[in-house]
Amino acid sequence: MFSEADFIHMQRALTLASRGMYTTTPNPRVGCVLVKDGLPIGEGFTQPAGQDHAEVQALKDARRRGHDPQGATAYVSLEPCSHFGRTPPCAHALIDARVKRVIAAMEDPNPQVSGRGLAMLRDAGIDVRCGLLANEARELNIGFVSRMTRARPWVRMKVAASLDGRTALPTGESQWITGEAARADGHAWRARACAILTGIGTVREDDPQLTVRGIDTPRQPLRVLIDSRLDVPLSARLLEGPPPLVFCGAIDERNAAHAEALTARGVEVVPLANEHGKVDLPAMLKRLGERGINELHVEAGHKLNGSLLREGCVDELLVYLAPSLLGAGSAGMFDVAAPATLDARTRLAFHSVDRVGDDLRILARLQTPSAPH
Amino acid sequence: MFSEADFIHMQRALTLASRGMYTTTPNPRVGCVLVKDGLPIGEGFTQPAGQDHAEVQALKDARRRGHDPQGATAYVSLEPCSHFGRTPPCAHALIDARVKRVIAAMEDPNPQVSGRGLAMLRDAGIDVRCGLLANEARELNIGFVSRMTRARPWVRMKVAASLDGRTALPTGESQWITGEAARADGHAWRARACAILTGIGTVREDDPQLTVRGIDTPRQPLRVLIDSRLDVPLSARLLEGPPPLVFCGAIDERNAAHAEALTARGVEVVPLANEHGKVDLPAMLKRLGERGINELHVEAGHKLNGSLLREGCVDELLVYLAPSLLGAGSAGMFDVAAPATLDARTRLAFHSVDRVGDDLRILARLQTPSAPH
Repeated sequence: MFSEADFIHMQRALTLASRGMYTTTPNPRVGCVLVKDGLPIGEGFTQPAGQDHAEVQALKDARRRGHDPQGATAYVSLEPCSHFGRTPPCAHALIDARVKRVIAAMEDPNPQVSGRGLAMLRDAGIDVRCGLLANEARELNIGFVSRMTRARPWVRMKVAASLDGRTALPTGESQWITGEAARADGHAWRARACAILTGIGTVREDDPQLTVRGIDTPRQPLRVLIDSRLDVPLSARLLEGPPPLVFCGAIDERNAAHAEALTARGVEVVPLANEHGKVDLPAMLKRLGERGINELHVEAGHKLNGSLLREGCVDELLVYLAPSLLGAGSAGMFDVAAPATLDARTRLAFHSVDRVGDDLRILARLQTPSAPH
Repeated sequence: MFSEADFIHMQRALTLASRGMYTTTPNPRVGCVLVKDGLPIGEGFTQPAGQDHAEVQALKDARRRGHDPQGATAYVSLEPCSHFGRTPPCAHALIDARVKRVIAAMEDPNPQVSGRGLAMLRDAGIDVRCGLLANEARELNIGFVSRMTRARPWVRMKVAASLDGRTALPTGESQWITGEAARADGHAWRARACAILTGIGTVREDDPQLTVRGIDTPRQPLRVLIDSRLDVPLSARLLEGPPPLVFCGAIDERNAAHAEALTARGVEVVPLANEHGKVDLPAMLKRLGERGINELHVEAGHKLNGSLLREGCVDELLVYLAPSLLGAGSAGMFDVAAPATLDARTRLAFHSVDRVGDDLRILARLQTPSAPH
């Protein structure tokens, strides 16, 4: 159904798409290659929100290089959009340019599109095919797919541990278990996320900035804090720079003044309590989805990690394993209780395993019914 | 110094050597290829102890195939032996055959040889070179090298754990954390070892046979039990088949009758106490070295694992990580205390990482001064 040339051009479209890794949010990362008489005549990828999508960039590129896109094949890593959002629909642009063929890696999971873009192209007499390198395309926009199909972000929890699964000594010492290369790699994963989440325990113990450093990105992810009692000190480094979003349990007379002080600093304080007075984590994910958060990167301690796991709020674990043993009594990765039987254990699937410096990086996905496909 | 053809022939010699993986003990695994006029004319690998070494097999093979080894180059994965052991020295055989050149991967670490074989060949006018694919050759005989240079076996400790480093539920349930492919792989590692070690705790909890199953091998490794109080029940499955070797603390009036009953069953009971009345683990390794044990495979519980680690008796960890989480309260990998600071942590180096079925297999080496090079 697809030729070798099709694969090569779609692979190029995916490479282009990944250039938008740090910038397209909340839009998906999309790449487009226009091919005429077997040769690429134009290419593009999604620009920051409100600017050109990949298809329009590729059409402009072709014309700038003196080529007429009429009769060309467009390879797009996602179905062209069919609706007027911040920009006009890309399907229109392709029809107007009189391309002959469109090959899409996957349908747009956006319910406002999902097949309508392809139908619009077909109705205009264009030869349309879909499904080439679909898995790769889906991986690239795993957060966007999650938000569109589940109304919540794709949640990736980062943990750095010794080979025996320990994250900190009994003294609390935890910096640095992994090496420099793993820490730099961790910043690249922060950079691709729309938001970075932590808990008040980590703020107290490590006082992190939670910014992306050492990665060339024009955009810092939104920082999100889970702080049920609203205890975050005004001196926390998390409050420096663009104000973070703070979820707390309830605002009452005990913390109202503190909430006001935070608000005065530009911090958005959102009370969102569950029946125990803690932050309602699934509801929080829904809120983040509504704000256009595709990928949520979690860097928290074992308590919040455990709560997120218990409440089904984790999609994948990003585990850096260091070549060391920390021994018994050291903190584990997650505060989750052991199941009654092995059959009831939390099941994962190893998605990728790589060496990063002297450490290992393991991406493992939760095998739960809530995970998107 | 070495040509591409040299690499190819030595690679073949290493492949041949690995055919002796389960059979050459206590001798090293060695392969030999004879090449004349650019073509291989004979090849061989070490046969079970007392039978032909690789070089003699290769010479016989060449003659059987109608080739005269005179003027050939011999590629050997280990320096030809120079001494009369159970067989006459291989250096003599190569000299008698009038080969022209000998390329060895590494010197024989056996103090009875270590360079004498190569010197003997040089004295006979043969062009001798050493060091081609030396690392690969050393890996293949890591246990033999350990025994020759440190008078103790290479100790490989197998652990099967969940991604969060847990080996059993609080209920004790641990079968099976890893999948079938990993368990089969574990039997291949058992098969290559000269001996398999476990502790009385594991005998009580799992009552294992500790035999090699599902692997085509003519030889079962010696089974070794650490049982300080000599508590092993006569009904233990470990006592079925060829009798195991049991190390205990002391034999006194409390266990003398039991020791006699075991001895009557053919079991060798060795009292070897340290100052605390427990089995002296470093002394045990020395004893195993004296008995020609090259590779010692450990499958024990977290207590004995911890003792072996604390007493510097482990060279490498063979860790199977399953795609699951067992949670807090579940047993860890090793009963070792946390260090006072991160700087003092037990350091490892990841030697290899592979997927085995749905699990990961990680080979990690202890970075201690006692590790051989």
